[in-house]
Amino acid sequence: MDADQRAAHIVNAWQDAWNASDMDALMALFADDSHWVNVVGMHWQGKRAVEHAHRAYFDLMFRGVAQRLEQIEHVAVLPGGTLVVVARWWMDSFREPDGATKPAHRNRMTIVIVPDGDRDLIVHGMNVTIDEYAQQFDPARTLTAAA
Amino acid sequence: MDADQRAAHIVNAWQDAWNASDMDALMALFADDSHWVNVVGMHWQGKRAVEHAHRAYFDLMFRGVAQRLEQIEHVAVLPGGTLVVVARWWMDSFREPDGATKPAHRNRMTIVIVPDGDRDLIVHGMNVTIDEYAQQFDPARTLTAAA
Repeated sequence: MDADQRAAHIVNAWQDAWNASDMDALMALFADDSHWVNVVGMHWQGKRAVEHAHRAYFDLMFRGVAQRLEQIEHVAVLPGGTLVVVARWWMDSFREPDGATKPAHRNRMTIVIVPDGDRDLIVHGMNVTIDEYAQQFDPARTLTAAA
Repeated sequence: MDADQRAAHIVNAWQDAWNASDMDALMALFADDSHWVNVVGMHWQGKRAVEHAHRAYFDLMFRGVAQRLEQIEHVAVLPGGTLVVVARWWMDSFREPDGATKPAHRNRMTIVIVPDGDRDLIVHGMNVTIDEYAQQFDPARTLTAAA
């Protein structure tokens, strides 16, 4: 597989595992020494923490909440076959633990994946909610459009 | 330099350049094919966009706004000498373009750096504002504390 195919493969596997609420499949994508920084700035250090947090959040609020890939925006190929992948997602609304409803929204996720035998594993992930109002003020918006 | 020293070197260079509002020094840390995803989910694709956006935001609101490193929380060493670095920052309050005051806050930044001759360059960066209220509900908080 080339870099774009590798990126698509792991992002699609993420999407399938998420939408099936299949934490075993989701966590199989992670390396043992993986870290995650989530949309509110929590930093989960090590696969045990990443897994504990994801399982807890699926129990609390994410089970059955659809996430849909909009676009893989960037695939950077680094030495040794490491890839940095930026993907844009749409996520359906869900009920937060305090009872408030988080409306449907989009987010951008960066994952760093490293070859491990015949597969790739996530060693780092981070995501951020897209502030739709702010996007119109992106200083680089016209540059990006022209690129 | 070992990995921790390399991480500290580039993070300190970031801090110095930021606090001096020195965009030439800041942009010298970036590879040509670098990307950045900012705290409101803007994705700057390529160094030209990263630079344009940073210069615009320093002109608009960041000039003289202090950013202080709290801690380098994680340094992952990947094949070929690539590092993934997670750093936690404190940032002073500033006036947003619409006149609102963003209070002092903390953020977590992930950067991916790659050796280039005798230096390292940033190929990817992403940061997210730390929601201080949310941190107490971090499912992995007790795990992290126990690690």
